[in-house]
Amino acid sequence: MKTIGTFAETRALVSGRIGLVPTMGFLHEGHVSLIEHARSMCDTLVASLYVNPTQFDESTDFDRYPRDLDRDSAIAAAAGVDILFAPDDEEMYPTPLLTQVHVPALADRMEGVHRSGHFAGVATVVAKLLAGIKPDVALFGRKDAQQLAVVTTMAADLSFPVDIVGGSIVRERDGLALSSRNIFIEDRTAALTLHVGLMAAADAFEQGVIDGAELESVVVDSLGDVELEYVELADARTTERLVTLDRPAFIAIAARIGGVRLIDNVYFTGTPLVADRGNRLGAESMLYDEGDS
Amino acid sequence: MKTIGTFAETRALVSGRIGLVPTMGFLHEGHVSLIEHARSMCDTLVASLYVNPTQFDESTDFDRYPRDLDRDSAIAAAAGVDILFAPDDEEMYPTPLLTQVHVPALADRMEGVHRSGHFAGVATVVAKLLAGIKPDVALFGRKDAQQLAVVTTMAADLSFPVDIVGGSIVRERDGLALSSRNIFIEDRTAALTLHVGLMAAADAFEQGVIDGAELESVVVDSLGDVELEYVELADARTTERLVTLDRPAFIAIAARIGGVRLIDNVYFTGTPLVADRGNRLGAESMLYDEGDS
Repeated sequence: MKTIGTFAETRALVSGRIGLVPTMGFLHEGHVSLIEHARSMCDTLVASLYVNPTQFDESTDFDRYPRDLDRDSAIAAAAGVDILFAPDDEEMYPTPLLTQVHVPALADRMEGVHRSGHFAGVATVVAKLLAGIKPDVALFGRKDAQQLAVVTTMAADLSFPVDIVGGSIVRERDGLALSSRNIFIEDRTAALTLHVGLMAAADAFEQGVIDGAELESVVVDSLGDVELEYVELADARTTERLVTLDRPAFIAIAARIGGVRLIDNVYFTGTPLVADRGNRLGAESMLYDEGDS
Repeated sequence: MKTIGTFAETRALVSGRIGLVPTMGFLHEGHVSLIEHARSMCDTLVASLYVNPTQFDESTDFDRYPRDLDRDSAIAAAAGVDILFAPDDEEMYPTPLLTQVHVPALADRMEGVHRSGHFAGVATVVAKLLAGIKPDVALFGRKDAQQLAVVTTMAADLSFPVDIVGGSIVRERDGLALSSRNIFIEDRTAALTLHVGLMAAADAFEQGVIDGAELESVVVDSLGDVELEYVELADARTTERLVTLDRPAFIAIAARIGGVRLIDNVYFTGTPLVADRGNRLGAESMLYDEGDS
């Protein structure tokens, strides 16, 4: 595996069907799952690693976002990445960014309400990755469900010839959704209630509940000592809040536990709709706990 | 030459270094000049032909914009185009467009003041062409000077690996800048004063005048019976109004003559700065007057 700093060098090294897994680094089993899925779909697999400042609404969150390139390189190589595209700020933003890519109809709710400017930053940096690397397929985790919807719409609207593929959430053995920010969690019991609430809603759906407000209430009723930002049943494609769970959708939650902001969700896809509760890690693959930070 | 309706078929037919000349059709010698220039820079030359509704601020302007695909096909083929990409609305906007590409710092002046939403439409549709056709070089006429700046910044900001190249204005023998809208001109004498004013400003610059306000006044003083919208000395890269002509720049003018809105400009480029007054057609190449519309 090669670590490359520029778009041009990356393009010069790829051939055949190109896969891309964009990341902000500090890779965990969720990323590995995407990489392994992508590996089977392409000839050349590129993972990108860039902590994109324009999608952070809080500078402290950006500053303390965990970084460990050596560890990420080893994980990426072991998972089957051919090229780790790890640009610096000079490559990504050589001049002040004057162009905005924005999908307001999908972005201005849920995460967009609580993280001002976040999705404009995401849409723009993903557009840059699609433009600069020209992948045929790009994979994003379903954990960022609204992001997946924004990126899917952006790529289609801008005629990028790329398949945007979502990957199921990977959870620790106790159900906590993997996140690079999990290292900051102090009250794990409270953090776990996000997952507990979502699984309760999935249970309720499987028992016949399709009313959006009722499903959202099931989640809220399970929550422990968390500062809730939102719980919404959202159309998976448009992110519009749904009155009834009668199409592909997700129930998303965001909450703060102590100083840590976490998000999680449960997807409903397929015909008939089936809950995607994510995949729990076995004991042997607790990659997340092996981090050296 | 092949006329193709979809991005996918277009991509399947191109190879080597790809050139793109985006147009709205009703081709004139200005387009032919760009096509001939592009021909020398690429292996496969694509011209696109699409009257993009999202960049029109006036529906009457969109409705009456001249269209003649048969004539355009013949001109494009004769000029050396390999593929005429002529998509329909279904290919360009299969679903309501939710994504905006915008470069407000460059777009919200001059044309942007008088044509609300114009440059968001331009930036978005050009982003689609760059994403969907993946050209290595794309050519735009300097007649739309501000558009050239917007597109250049957009492409660089979004990391499209494309060289954006501007081509000199082509003028009729009497100096009128070629435009698909010229067929609507009734008071040609008045229309010509835009060109007269710009050339007077170029003369003044060559005689040592570098003060922006003075150069703008020279243009205004030459105008005949026109309804002036703006005259501005603008930085060629940033489109900011300049106090002094001391860097690559253009003096742009927009005015209405009867019901017809015209734009024109004179560029100043190189070291030292030299005026690009455009190229006048000889009698044998008055392609514009041969139109059948």
